[in-house]
Amino acid sequence: MTIQQTLQRIEPIDEGLILAAQRRLDNLTKPIGSLGRLEALACRLVAITGDENPTFNQKRIITIAADHGVVGEGVSAYPQEVTAQMVRNFLSGGAAINVLARHAGAEVVVADFGVAVELEPHPNLVSRKIGFGTRNIVHEPAMAREQAIAAIEAGIEIALREIESGANLIGTGEMGIGNTTPSSAITAVFTGASVAQVTGRGTGVDEMTLQRKIDVIERAIELHRPNPSDPIDVLAKVGGFEIGGIAGVILASAAHRVPILVDGFISTAGALIAGALQPDVRGYLISAHCSAEIGHRIALDFLGLEPILELELRLGEGTGAALAMPIVEAGAKILAEMASFDEAGVSKSKE
Amino acid sequence: MTIQQTLQRIEPIDEGLILAAQRRLDNLTKPIGSLGRLEALACRLVAITGDENPTFNQKRIITIAADHGVVGEGVSAYPQEVTAQMVRNFLSGGAAINVLARHAGAEVVVADFGVAVELEPHPNLVSRKIGFGTRNIVHEPAMAREQAIAAIEAGIEIALREIESGANLIGTGEMGIGNTTPSSAITAVFTGASVAQVTGRGTGVDEMTLQRKIDVIERAIELHRPNPSDPIDVLAKVGGFEIGGIAGVILASAAHRVPILVDGFISTAGALIAGALQPDVRGYLISAHCSAEIGHRIALDFLGLEPILELELRLGEGTGAALAMPIVEAGAKILAEMASFDEAGVSKSKE
Repeated sequence: MTIQQTLQRIEPIDEGLILAAQRRLDNLTKPIGSLGRLEALACRLVAITGDENPTFNQKRIITIAADHGVVGEGVSAYPQEVTAQMVRNFLSGGAAINVLARHAGAEVVVADFGVAVELEPHPNLVSRKIGFGTRNIVHEPAMAREQAIAAIEAGIEIALREIESGANLIGTGEMGIGNTTPSSAITAVFTGASVAQVTGRGTGVDEMTLQRKIDVIERAIELHRPNPSDPIDVLAKVGGFEIGGIAGVILASAAHRVPILVDGFISTAGALIAGALQPDVRGYLISAHCSAEIGHRIALDFLGLEPILELELRLGEGTGAALAMPIVEAGAKILAEMASFDEAGVSKSKE
Repeated sequence: MTIQQTLQRIEPIDEGLILAAQRRLDNLTKPIGSLGRLEALACRLVAITGDENPTFNQKRIITIAADHGVVGEGVSAYPQEVTAQMVRNFLSGGAAINVLARHAGAEVVVADFGVAVELEPHPNLVSRKIGFGTRNIVHEPAMAREQAIAAIEAGIEIALREIESGANLIGTGEMGIGNTTPSSAITAVFTGASVAQVTGRGTGVDEMTLQRKIDVIERAIELHRPNPSDPIDVLAKVGGFEIGGIAGVILASAAHRVPILVDGFISTAGALIAGALQPDVRGYLISAHCSAEIGHRIALDFLGLEPILELELRLGEGTGAALAMPIVEAGAKILAEMASFDEAGVSKSKE
């Protein structure tokens, strides 16, 4: 499905369903509003799915990997080869995302959108290579406009395949050495914050590297002048293949009314692209967590999202999305399984 | 087991085990520290249990109910009869704690420590009534010193029974109309904060009732002068039977190296009593969440606890503890199930 076809299918979430779900919650045996943000979450799940009692028995984490030419500028604490090594680790089940997805009862879908080396085929690897890593944004746009479109459409396709196979809750995830750099660039372009405000230490660079990273991003934005009212232009000039893929996963999920758990900073950069393509998509997003990366809160605020967890994670892969899944399911179960005041013979508030 | 015997069994958690667990974490396939607070949690679970790879296959929420004479002052939005009604709701499985504990794979243990009416017997109700509600603290101490000791020892006994039957992760919970009032009193006495700083709207009282509640607590403290260096005196003068029970559950869990998930504000008041009886107990506590009740953060800071969740819950029952259980288990699974750099053939950081 093309980007345009997908965008046309996305409708604003139904605010009336939120109110109806809140009325039901208010009749369950607990003081009104006493489950706090879990109640708001439950209501939004109803509005997203259009289902009075949504269930999430088929959960997926879609983890998309790609490499970044900008690592040539020395912006990461890890060598580029780690991207491919970690993809193999995902496929053999030893990474954090494997452990946490298994714990959440979710399946991990691993996709190669642009790892810098040719990966050996594997039955569980979805190979959708758009290129062998992006180009170095200090000198060239990260990718051609056609590649940006292809990355988003490959993301749409992967999500559609999962939704057709029954997926009813999707979490985003990624792997790509250097990918906080394009994510900071995207966040700066869309939110209008300065590069320094949205650029952090990624997986752990020192102060000197952080300064270099800020300088690299400032130079890339200065050189390419990505246009925030043309999200595909932003993705092409300073983005990444996996970030485009995440945008596509988000768009397809919203188009099919599947709630989407947005993982960390890089996933939120993908959400910025998706939200700029179609603002109604924001109603379908659930922020799993706010990471330790300083630009993340700014991006979440811009999208109007309040994270479920705040555990100072800075790993990516979809780990925050997996950790938040049980909370999302808990919200839905409150609505479906709690007794009402009448059923339980419990008195209501005196007021 | 008596309070003294239990206190004598409690040893400080082994800081060496924390360091050893962190060394293991640092060799797993993720940037050092990138799982943030989940890593700190994993390390503490090892130190608490003394088990390199703790597993939590037998989880319990111990929900203790009792009534409070102070409701006669009009400090709650709900009539006292709701305490008994909710106990019946717990027993028939329709309350929020039933739904959330089931979701977490935990069993709910429901205990009556002092509901104001005689409850019909039920196979799943643990009946340990210390009294038919506390007395009105504006006029009299909440309970006799012997009752305070009995409440704590009944809590110890219930936890021991569960630990003997295999429980390896225990969450606290409570039900008692009016019980944010004694909890605010206890928090003020131990932390030294003013009553106004630690008194909130409970399950939802209006501004006028909030002012009355503050006044009631100030008068009770003024009248009884509870002595913070004698925690049993504090419990007896301004506490509650369920709060004493929670303190007992905490002490017994710490004595048997079982991690204890402290639920909300009332549970944290129980933790303040337990922590004052034996400061080493604090190492065994895991704060499940910070509630919407304004005194909760102050009590958590005093105990040196950082909550896992912050979802504006204000229900109690053990709901926050149940919601946090999957996160606790996730921490332990990271340690047990992730591949090391060597195993996975992944390169380490360049630094």
